[in-house]
Amino acid sequence: MTERDAPRVTVLGLGRMGTAIARAFLAAGYRTTVWNRTGAKADVLTAEGAVPADDVTAAVEAGPLLIVPLLDPGAIRQALEPAAPSLAGRTVVGLANGTPQQAGDLAAWAAGYDADYLDGAMMALPHTVATPEAFFFYSGPERAYAEHRTALEVMAIAHHVGADPAAAEIHSLAVLGTGYAALTGFLHAAALLETFGTDPETLAPAAAAWLRGMAAFLPELAGQAGSGRYGDAASTIDLNRPAVDALIALSGERGVDPALHRPLKELLDRRSADGHGDDSFAAVYELLRVR
Amino acid sequence: MTERDAPRVTVLGLGRMGTAIARAFLAAGYRTTVWNRTGAKADVLTAEGAVPADDVTAAVEAGPLLIVPLLDPGAIRQALEPAAPSLAGRTVVGLANGTPQQAGDLAAWAAGYDADYLDGAMMALPHTVATPEAFFFYSGPERAYAEHRTALEVMAIAHHVGADPAAAEIHSLAVLGTGYAALTGFLHAAALLETFGTDPETLAPAAAAWLRGMAAFLPELAGQAGSGRYGDAASTIDLNRPAVDALIALSGERGVDPALHRPLKELLDRRSADGHGDDSFAAVYELLRVR
Ligand SMILES: NC(=O)c1ccc[n+]([C@@H]2O[C@H](COP(=O)([O-])OP(=O)(O)OC[C@H]3O[C@@H](n4cnc5c(N)ncnc54)[C@H](OP(=O)(O)O)[C@@H]3O)[C@@H](O)[C@H]2O)c1
Ligand SMILES: NC(=O)c1ccc[n+]([C@@H]2O[C@H](COP(=O)([O-])OP(=O)(O)OC[C@H]3O[C@@H](n4cnc5c(N)ncnc54)[C@H](OP(=O)(O)O)[C@@H]3O)[C@@H](O)[C@H]2O)c1
Repeated sequence: MTERDAPRVTVLGLGRMGTAIARAFLAAGYRTTVWNRTGAKADVLTAEGAVPADDVTAAVEAGPLLIVPLLDPGAIRQALEPAAPSLAGRTVVGLANGTPQQAGDLAAWAAGYDADYLDGAMMALPHTVATPEAFFFYSGPERAYAEHRTALEVMAIAHHVGADPAAAEIHSLAVLGTGYAALTGFLHAAALLETFGTDPETLAPAAAAWLRGMAAFLPELAGQAGSGRYGDAASTIDLNRPAVDALIALSGERGVDPALHRPLKELLDRRSADGHGDDSFAAVYELLRVR
Repeated sequence: MTERDAPRVTVLGLGRMGTAIARAFLAAGYRTTVWNRTGAKADVLTAEGAVPADDVTAAVEAGPLLIVPLLDPGAIRQALEPAAPSLAGRTVVGLANGTPQQAGDLAAWAAGYDADYLDGAMMALPHTVATPEAFFFYSGPERAYAEHRTALEVMAIAHHVGADPAAAEIHSLAVLGTGYAALTGFLHAAALLETFGTDPETLAPAAAAWLRGMAAFLPELAGQAGSGRYGDAASTIDLNRPAVDALIALSGERGVDPALHRPLKELLDRRSADGHGDDSFAAVYELLRVR
C-alpha cells in the first residue's frame, strides 16, 4: 500500500484516548492527520508518522472521516465550530462521554452543516484501545456507520446500537451502571472485611474470581429476565434472601453502611411475600422493569 | 492404590452440592462413604462406587473426615446429633450457607463432643465443583485444616481465612455481596434498556465483557484502597460523577427506580465537595471504611 492509496482518517483531540486512537490508526497503516487544541501533544505523534494539521479547518479538510475524542460534548462543538463550513459531506464521530441529550444536540448541530454524525461511547481505557478488551457503542445513521465500519474497527470492537444518536450513550450508561454497582459492592465488602483485619488486597483475587463467574452467568440471568421464565432454578429468591439479610445485618453490626444492599433486600422480600420465593433470583427483574 | 490404601472420606448429605462433592472424591480415588437423610439419593452414588452407610453413626465411624454439605447449619446439627458420641477425634467440615454466628455455634457444639470443626463456605455451583472456577473458604483450627488439606482441595481451591469459625462465612458474605451488587446492577441496566426496546439478552454480552474488565481492575482498586494513595489516577471522582448523575437522571425519566445507584452518587458528591474530585474513584473507600 503506498502512502497515496492509504485510507485517510483525522483524529481531532490528542488527550489520553485520542493519542491511543491516533497510534492505533498509524499502526493499521492509515494516513492519520492529527490536531489538538494545544499543539505540543501533536509533536510526539508527528514523530511517529502522523500528519500534523496547521489548524482545525485543515484537519477537517484532510479527509472524509473525523474522529473526535475530546473531554466532553461541549468541547467537540467548540473545537469544530471554526471549521463548521468545511464539515459538509463528512462524517463526524464524537467520542466524548456525555448525556443522551447532549449526543442528540451534537447530531442536530452537525446536521445543520450537512455532516453525518455518529455518536460513540468508548468502553475502554487508553491502554486497551485496539485490543480485544475494548468495545465502542455507536449510534446514528446506519449508512454512515456501514461506510466507515472498517476504520471504526481499528479502534475497538464496534457495536451499532441504533439510529437515534442518543442510543450509544444510553447503552454506555447501562453497561457502566453494571460496573459501578460491582465496584461499589467490592469497596463495601472490603470495608466490611477490614473490620475483621483482612485488607482489600487479600479480598481482591477471590472477589475477582467470583465476578468472572457472575459475568459468565449473565447470559442465563438475561435469558430468564427476557423470557419471564423463572422456574426450575438452581438459585432461588428464598435461597438468596438469607445471605443478603446476613450481609446487611453484619454490615450494620460492624458500622459499615449497608445502603447499597437495601434495594436488593427489598426486592427479594417483596418477591417472597408475593409467593415467588421458589422462583429464580432473576425474578426480581419483574419488580424493576417498567410495563 | 488398592482399595485398602485409599484415603477415606465420608460425605453426609447428597443434595445438589453433596452429590457433586461425592463424585469428585470418587474420581480422585477416595474410599467414599455416603449418607443422606432420605436414602434414595445414595443409590446412584453407590452404583458409581461409593460405600453406602446403614445409618448416620456408621457413616461417621467410617473415617476421620466428615464432609457435611446440608441445607443449613440447623440441618447439620440435626443430622449429626444421633451420632454425636462417635464424633470424638474426627473433623467435621460443615458446608452450609449460614451466618457467622451459626458457624460459631456449630463449632462450639462439635467441641462439646471432642470433634474438630472446620466451617466451609462454598463459592461454587454444583457443576463447578472440582473445577478451577470453584473455591471454598475455610475457618477453624489451622492444624485440622493442614491435616485434611489434600482432601479439601479435591472439592475446590481452598482458602483458610482464620481460626475463628465465623471467618469463612464472613469472607463468603463479602464476596457474595460483590456479586449481588453486580447482578442487581445488571438487572437495573436491563430494565432501563428495555424501555428503549433493547432486550436483556442483547445487553448481556457487553455487560459481561465490561464486568470481566472490572474484575481485572479490582487488584488495582484494592491497592489504592488498601494504601490510601489516590493520586495520579486515570479515572477520578470528578470524571465518574457525571456518568453516575446521568444514569440516575435517565433512570428517573424512564421510570426505573435508581435506588441502587444513589449510595454511590452520595459518596462521589461528598468526596468532590470535600476537595477530593481529582482523586481516584477508589477514594470513596475512605467514606465507607470504619476507623
Ligand atoms: N481516559 C479514560 O480512561 C477514558 C475511558 C473511556 C472514555 N473516556 C472519555 O473520553 C473522553 C476523552 O478522555 P481523555 O481521558 O482522553 O481526556 P484527556 O486526556 O483529559 O484529554 C482531553 C482532550 O480534550 C481536549 N479539550 C478539552 N476541552 C477542549 C476544548 N474546549 N476545545 C478543544 N479541545 C478541548 C484537550 O485538549 P488540550 O490538550 O488542549 O487540553 C484534550 O485533547 C472523555 O469524554 C472521557 O470521559 C475516557
Ligand atoms: N446449589 C448451589 O448452587 C449452592 C452453591 C453454593 C452453596 N450452596 C449451599 O450449599 C448447601 C447445600 O445446597 P444444595 O443446593 O446442595 O441443597 P439441596 O440440593 O436442597 O440439598 C439439601 C440437602 O440437605 C438435606 N437436609 C435438609 N434438611 C435436613 C435435615 N434436617 N437433616 C438431614 N438432612 C437434611 C437434604 O436431605 P434430603 O435429600 O433428605 O431432603 C439434602 O441432602 C446450602 O447451604 C446452600 O446454600 C448451594
